[in-house]
Amino acid sequence: MRILFIGDVVGDKGVSMIQHYLPVIKQEVRPQVTIVNGENATAMGRGITQSIYKKLMGDGVDVVTLGNHAWSNREILDFIDDANRLIRPYNFPKNVTPGKGYTLVNVNGKQLAVLNFQGRVFMDNLDDPFSLAESLVTELRQKTNCIFMDFHAEATSEKLAMARFLDGKVSAVVGTHTHVQTNDPRILPQKTAFLTDVGMTGPADGMLGMKPESVISRFINQRPARFEVLETGRGVLSGCVIDIDDKTGHATAIKTIKYLDDQAHG
Amino acid sequence: MRILFIGDVVGDKGVSMIQHYLPVIKQEVRPQVTIVNGENATAMGRGITQSIYKKLMGDGVDVVTLGNHAWSNREILDFIDDANRLIRPYNFPKNVTPGKGYTLVNVNGKQLAVLNFQGRVFMDNLDDPFSLAESLVTELRQKTNCIFMDFHAEATSEKLAMARFLDGKVSAVVGTHTHVQTNDPRILPQKTAFLTDVGMTGPADGMLGMKPESVISRFINQRPARFEVLETGRGVLSGCVIDIDDKTGHATAIKTIKYLDDQAHG
Amino acid sequence: MRILFIGDVVGDKGVSMIQHYLPVIKQEVRPQVTIVNGENATAMGRGITQSIYKKLMGDGVDVVTLGNHAWSNREILDFIDDANRLIRPYNFPKNVTPGKGYTLVNVNGKQLAVLNFQGRVFMDNLDDPFSLAESLVTELRQKTNCIFMDFHAEATSEKLAMARFLDGKVSAVVGTHTHVQTNDPRILPQKTAFLTDVGMTGPADGMLGMKPESVISRFINQRPARFEVLETGRGVLSGCVIDIDDKTGHATAIKTIKYLDDQAHG
Amino acid sequence: MRILFIGDVVGDKGVSMIQHYLPVIKQEVRPQVTIVNGENATAMGRGITQSIYKKLMGDGVDVVTLGNHAWSNREILDFIDDANRLIRPYNFPKNVTPGKGYTLVNVNGKQLAVLNFQGRVFMDNLDDPFSLAESLVTELRQKTNCIFMDFHAEATSEKLAMARFLDGKVSAVVGTHTHVQTNDPRILPQKTAFLTDVGMTGPADGMLGMKPESVISRFINQRPARFEVLETGRGVLSGCVIDIDDKTGHATAIKTIKYLDDQAHG
Ligand SMILES: [Fe+2]
Ligand SMILES: [Fe+2]
Ligand SMILES: [Fe+2]
Ligand SMILES: [Fe+2]
Ligand SMILES: [Fe+2]
Ligand SMILES: [Fe+2]
Ligand SMILES: [Fe+2]
Ligand SMILES: [Fe+2]
Repeated sequence: MRILFIGDVVGDKGVSMIQHYLPVIKQEVRPQVTIVNGENATAMGRGITQSIYKKLMGDGVDVVTLGNHAWSNREILDFIDDANRLIRPYNFPKNVTPGKGYTLVNVNGKQLAVLNFQGRVFMDNLDDPFSLAESLVTELRQKTNCIFMDFHAEATSEKLAMARFLDGKVSAVVGTHTHVQTNDPRILPQKTAFLTDVGMTGPADGMLGMKPESVISRFINQRPARFEVLETGRGVLSGCVIDIDDKTGHATAIKTIKYLDDQAHG
Repeated sequence: MRILFIGDVVGDKGVSMIQHYLPVIKQEVRPQVTIVNGENATAMGRGITQSIYKKLMGDGVDVVTLGNHAWSNREILDFIDDANRLIRPYNFPKNVTPGKGYTLVNVNGKQLAVLNFQGRVFMDNLDDPFSLAESLVTELRQKTNCIFMDFHAEATSEKLAMARFLDGKVSAVVGTHTHVQTNDPRILPQKTAFLTDVGMTGPADGMLGMKPESVISRFINQRPARFEVLETGRGVLSGCVIDIDDKTGHATAIKTIKYLDDQAHG
Repeated sequence: MRILFIGDVVGDKGVSMIQHYLPVIKQEVRPQVTIVNGENATAMGRGITQSIYKKLMGDGVDVVTLGNHAWSNREILDFIDDANRLIRPYNFPKNVTPGKGYTLVNVNGKQLAVLNFQGRVFMDNLDDPFSLAESLVTELRQKTNCIFMDFHAEATSEKLAMARFLDGKVSAVVGTHTHVQTNDPRILPQKTAFLTDVGMTGPADGMLGMKPESVISRFINQRPARFEVLETGRGVLSGCVIDIDDKTGHATAIKTIKYLDDQAHG
Repeated sequence: MRILFIGDVVGDKGVSMIQHYLPVIKQEVRPQVTIVNGENATAMGRGITQSIYKKLMGDGVDVVTLGNHAWSNREILDFIDDANRLIRPYNFPKNVTPGKGYTLVNVNGKQLAVLNFQGRVFMDNLDDPFSLAESLVTELRQKTNCIFMDFHAEATSEKLAMARFLDGKVSAVVGTHTHVQTNDPRILPQKTAFLTDVGMTGPADGMLGMKPESVISRFINQRPARFEVLETGRGVLSGCVIDIDDKTGHATAIKTIKYLDDQAHG
């Protein structure tokens, strides 16, 4: 099966990039399943609303993943338990966290498990992603060997460690969160596809999606600054395409994609 | 002028990759100046020795930059003040730090200023890289408008903020430290070349240059683990090539390079 | 001279503790100068307003210091430059930070320099407090040898390092920020008084001034939670009293004070 | 029952303070059980050896707790599983961590459960101490209601949050790790004794047990520095005494103790 994964959708521009480019990409790439990280999809760039989630699904997305901004828009607490294809990092505290950390999708008559985990290095104190991934993967492999993980993490070492740790047990580990696409798509020795970070989708000319002035002033002044999504200029869509052998669950190919547009869309 | 910049050289394998590939790359790319980050060049992957510094220079490198591992091999304190082309991050504490944070090189009969700075987000508490870069660049621009910065930093936001902050005032800001090459080489609006991270040079199949077992066990066990440079397998060399208009100091092109080898070199 | 220093005033309860207890303490302790840390003085517990600053001064405070919450209430940007006795950490970025980092007060016909600095360990990336303190103290000692520093910092090691670093050059280094009074008031070998943390002033039965529920839920859930100042129950006032030999600037005594009240005040 | 708890024993001086003062304190205080944090007990101030563990037990200690330095001396891996009264933080990763996180001691014909946990704020990424403490305490309470926790943590907020979270379910939560005794011993509303930090035991005039020069130089230079235990000067012993009602498990009293000596022992 062919998986299309698209990185952190930021703000209205990000959502509109999905709307306008997903049909084009589907035409070109012919994925059988499309997964999008939506942790920055609100107009403020923080969290997701129910209507954005529904719009993404309506525009052709199959699963939406999240990250450290999962709860930034509090409205999510009201709808995540009913949102079948919206997952948040699995390793938020057990028993007290709404929503779920993985979902199973039918692709080609096979099941694909889509997992969302979050790193801890330079990030929040969540539960151990390594031991939890190990036991969840062991459990899921009784159902399917096609397993995809969006690992939302900051440090390159933690992302690669997770991929090596799961090498041969999952089909792909792809990183999100830094909003910058890395140039290292590859198949690890035991046939797990890996990419350190897939990059972001939204305003192309800002600071990782935000207006440059306030981000830069934060560094210069060390005072609180309100970050706002950049609303003007070009958009970018960043993602990757992964091919999995349905029988073995092994990855056979991974490549990055990036679309830059210079037109204003609706 | 054309600048070749090569990222974090790790261990013996990294040093030998420079020795074997630099002639090849020079043949192909024809750079007029070659800059290499050497903060991980010892056999332990931490710091640099005088003999490695001299070997790199002998193998065709013009300037060696450093980073947070600058002082990991204490021998550096004995030779850095005499090492004319070895620079450490400029924003280590003033007055008490050996060595220097920039150097001027003659290229094509023009001066190129090579700067090394270090970020603070998720890193050590150095002096403010933004205000120091601003005043140093202002001073240097009285001598030359060709200015290259190796910004050794962790966070994508801090790296991009520095580049945007200096956009139009320097020729290039290129990141190091994460050991993973990013897929975002570009010319910013005011003609500064930028790349979030150039990636590493050394063992291709380890954990950012290190043996995978101990790095993974550190994540699993949360106990201290001794990290060792991976000594087997293929090597990789990661870098970028930047073209600068000698008259204006503006960047006209930037592209990433990556060489993978599967042979053991002496 | 005798200095009364009172730690982080939190919320309305903290401000009212000053109003009601300062006259009592002055009666008992007979300080010649009163310094209060006001970084949490608003009703929200974040930052300070002009009217609270004026109220504190009207209630008998001579100097108000701040900390990492200095800018949390944006109104401060409008009045700090006119507030003669309100100081913020000296080591915020030079040239771009409103207000000032020290003030000189006449006490007993002598000048007392009151300094505010902020630590960097586990905190924001401010300028180096050590080198800046050294040069500021050198400069101030040409005017007076009576120098008091509120060092707003998290790590016990950084606070003690600052005190040892300045031992013999300043009269006192007293820590704030953790909101918990430490049991280690002492005179260092070169006659500088030191206390790791003076503790907080405000609601006695909360979580460092805040309502316990939301703070605890933050730890349990790892989701964003709105922290609110506890408005009920007893108040506490934490401080210390320091005696300085006016001639030498040496500290001769330091002791902690703590007042607990169980009455509701205006 | 009366519990004597003594904070982080640092280096030879710390071990010798236990030897010389424990008999004196036992005479004065008459505790029925003595617990000591030994995470810094080696001559290097990092970790513990088997012979030091045995010496502490021989000198009258009943239980030794640890912290983030538990594994700093690798020898511990060889003996911790046989050391019946040596516990390490319970929330190190499950299944892969040697040793245990609590022990049961007979005191007065009753069982006292002694627990060791570690915080995560500004510290390592261990498992969630809150949820693990909750389930462990629930389980232990089927055996005994006398439960003591050494919570080894940096942030005052995390320590107090744990104590409030367990208030009424355990007899005492006492903090270690900052090496500075706090001035806030108290009984929480539901009868749990609490003290933010008990402080350290060892060299009195250093930097939290270490030689001041290297710690200060680390702050000044931001370069690696070797920290060594201070071997000269006075010693200090810091602790607290807690009274528990054996029937209810409720704390009835908590007070801090501190012994300073100016003599060279053994
Ligand atoms: Fe994101
Ligand atoms: Fe994120
Ligand atoms: Fe490096
Ligand atoms: Fe580095
Ligand atoms: Fe603070
Ligand atoms: Fe505060
Ligand atoms: Fe510790
Ligand atoms: Fe300790």
